[in-house]
Amino acid sequence: MLLVNRKLESVRGGVLAPNGFKAASVFCDIRQLGTGAGSERKQGKPDLTLIVSERPASVAGMFTTNQIKAAPVKWCIQVARLGVARAILANSGNANACTGPEGEQDTRRMATKVATLLGCRPEEVLICSTGRIGVRLPIERIEAGIEQLPSRLRNDEEAALQAAEAIMTSDTRPKQYAVRFRVGRTVVHVGGIAKGAGMIHPGMSPDGGRPPVGWGASHATMLAFLTTDIAVDPRLLSKLTTEAVGGTFNRIIVDGDMSTNDTVLVLANGAAGTRPFGIEDERNRAIAGLRQALFEVCGALAEMIVDDGEGVHRRVLVRVEGARSNAEADLAARTICRSPLVKASWHGGDPNWGRIIGALGYSSAAVDPNKVSIGYRRFGCTETIWVVRGGRPSKVSFGELCAAVASEQFEVVVRLGLGKGSAIIYTADLTEEYVSFNKGNPLAPETLGG
Amino acid sequence: MLLVNRKLESVRGGVLAPNGFKAASVFCDIRQLGTGAGSERKQGKPDLTLIVSERPASVAGMFTTNQIKAAPVKWCIQVARLGVARAILANSGNANACTGPEGEQDTRRMATKVATLLGCRPEEVLICSTGRIGVRLPIERIEAGIEQLPSRLRNDEEAALQAAEAIMTSDTRPKQYAVRFRVGRTVVHVGGIAKGAGMIHPGMSPDGGRPPVGWGASHATMLAFLTTDIAVDPRLLSKLTTEAVGGTFNRIIVDGDMSTNDTVLVLANGAAGTRPFGIEDERNRAIAGLRQALFEVCGALAEMIVDDGEGVHRRVLVRVEGARSNAEADLAARTICRSPLVKASWHGGDPNWGRIIGALGYSSAAVDPNKVSIGYRRFGCTETIWVVRGGRPSKVSFGELCAAVASEQFEVVVRLGLGKGSAIIYTADLTEEYVSFNKGNPLAPETLGG
Repeated sequence: MLLVNRKLESVRGGVLAPNGFKAASVFCDIRQLGTGAGSERKQGKPDLTLIVSERPASVAGMFTTNQIKAAPVKWCIQVARLGVARAILANSGNANACTGPEGEQDTRRMATKVATLLGCRPEEVLICSTGRIGVRLPIERIEAGIEQLPSRLRNDEEAALQAAEAIMTSDTRPKQYAVRFRVGRTVVHVGGIAKGAGMIHPGMSPDGGRPPVGWGASHATMLAFLTTDIAVDPRLLSKLTTEAVGGTFNRIIVDGDMSTNDTVLVLANGAAGTRPFGIEDERNRAIAGLRQALFEVCGALAEMIVDDGEGVHRRVLVRVEGARSNAEADLAARTICRSPLVKASWHGGDPNWGRIIGALGYSSAAVDPNKVSIGYRRFGCTETIWVVRGGRPSKVSFGELCAAVASEQFEVVVRLGLGKGSAIIYTADLTEEYVSFNKGNPLAPETLGG
Repeated sequence: MLLVNRKLESVRGGVLAPNGFKAASVFCDIRQLGTGAGSERKQGKPDLTLIVSERPASVAGMFTTNQIKAAPVKWCIQVARLGVARAILANSGNANACTGPEGEQDTRRMATKVATLLGCRPEEVLICSTGRIGVRLPIERIEAGIEQLPSRLRNDEEAALQAAEAIMTSDTRPKQYAVRFRVGRTVVHVGGIAKGAGMIHPGMSPDGGRPPVGWGASHATMLAFLTTDIAVDPRLLSKLTTEAVGGTFNRIIVDGDMSTNDTVLVLANGAAGTRPFGIEDERNRAIAGLRQALFEVCGALAEMIVDDGEGVHRRVLVRVEGARSNAEADLAARTICRSPLVKASWHGGDPNWGRIIGALGYSSAAVDPNKVSIGYRRFGCTETIWVVRGGRPSKVSFGELCAAVASEQFEVVVRLGLGKGSAIIYTADLTEEYVSFNKGNPLAPETLGG
């Protein structure tokens, strides 16, 4: 747990841990695995999931800042603007990106189908897609799948796990996390599921517009759906969601590529029975708890995404301190975490600081060569082994350095000595497996990313 | 030959093809290969080379815009500012970067030693280093090596080739090129040598200051030394060098990492016997010939650097047209060429356009999803196979696309449909070998990049 300090009580149940939510998942072969010549359509893991709130819920979202936004992302931005939702329908296998007006129609058809079955308006149904780009959804099969969902809605752990599985693409394992805390005598919950794997460098904003300078480019097909049973209005929920995502999902980089589909959605349905909280309660102790819980669930899911990144062997926390501003610290950290040479050296367990200082030098953050210090920390240790101090190599032994970076998780600490700006990024190494996994196969159009 | 259209007559002799230049190279074990326990100091390829002009030459340079500049880069920026030089001394094996005041003293000692032997001022001797970062040069051994050089100076092809070899680090082959053209009845020459391999994304400027927006970050240990026997003043030479480097070396990306040591130097000594040309002759036909010759030699060397990049299997020319400006076209092209997912898909011969459109979307260039077209061209063909038109997949067959990207060299054409801005970048795929080569070895401190 690097991005957050766990203090809350974690509980089972993932996205269904909060009261008043149910989910159901089905397999409807959205990738069309069975269309190859001579191959049978085979049953796979679920690829379509529906998460329903028993009552209208406040909704907040964070969306990819990529200028090329998939149809469902544009749809969700509109729903989040309205602020109220009843359900999330998500599919894997097809991103419904670069699919033109037909793609937008397909998204609306999915929302309309769910709305008809649940008895709500289409504008209360959030739609998320992840998978191949540029291929139309098999919309009839999806509509047939949707029809099976309402009768299967359940609120048990199995249903939550299936929802986490249904959104997986190249993920090797489902990702879910939940916590509970008290608001007075009332127990409230925050739970969530996520998917990640390739293309991970999120830089989401509440309306999909340009993120503040310092977030850099952002590149990921990552989806995360959070639920809570506290009652908060959409405006406060959006503020808290923006903070939590900015400190967690937007602080991870796997490969530095940003997708057309990144989305985080948070539903708050008030089923725990608390009084409704609004933006005026921002300093309330209950909201402090909610803020922490959202941060913690987002942080846990973000770390699971890095840990399960394509071909990842080592995970590295890069901590930049002493920049002229937080934005410059962020730029410096992101430049280090996107350098192929730095990431390759981590893979080899090589404490190569020359490449780190080289990357610092070409980042947009101000760097004074004579003030830079670079150190390594073993994971979980507070002691830093400084390899460069004030721009000069220290006398530390190579063996000592190697020991610091030998484990599967370690920290890189950079001090720029120019101010008080700081930032952390949680990232991973670059491995041969990553390249092999992503190089694709001329015979398999399924490798189209998204 | 992608970056230039060869029209001039190419000749043998590399950096010594122009009249009035000599070179000598020696091995002095700058990497200190022999210091490992029990290993013998063994004779290697030359690692120190001296290129001398028989008369004072005009000098122009382009230098890394990395904020962390190696000591020799800072030295050369000063020499280029003065505008006159007699010699270039270059070593491989050690970059003399992050070596503090001692590193600057070592650079000055090298220049002084050469100046004493040649009978010129130290400020007329350019110094370049490439290799490990953060380790002091073995300065006594280098000084002993320098003493051997003057008596060995020769102007034959063997001496030129040895100079090209002496600057190699992880390059697998020496890189040299030369052309000749006529100024009236006088034959003049432009020749050069270069080294590249890892960390290639140059973005050099004449004084090492920030490059114009649109060049992006720049990351390479690339060195190139050009010579010419035409007579031009330093101001005109600097203008022509900036143009040539901007159109060639600054348009290649191997991995997107920028080094602390990138340097291009051009010496013009007038030994061909032309009249001296100055900035007022910029439109003169002779200078048009020189402009073209510099562009061609730089272009040929730049392509050799990409072709010999670490682990490169395929070379790709990315051509962006229709951007709002040339600067935005450049940003879009560089974003595509730095995407690990795009580069990995090229490695697999996978015509994956989803990743290209994803990268376009997160570039800082304006992109309208409904106006983007993406196509592939076989190398040397003018026919474009369009895979996306106006943001939508075209009906082209997957087999046809695969054929276009199956060869070792192909083009990606992107049309943004927003204006007249265009740019090209010459780049390469991302391979498992690149990662293996750069992951380093905990037991071998030699792997420190630079």
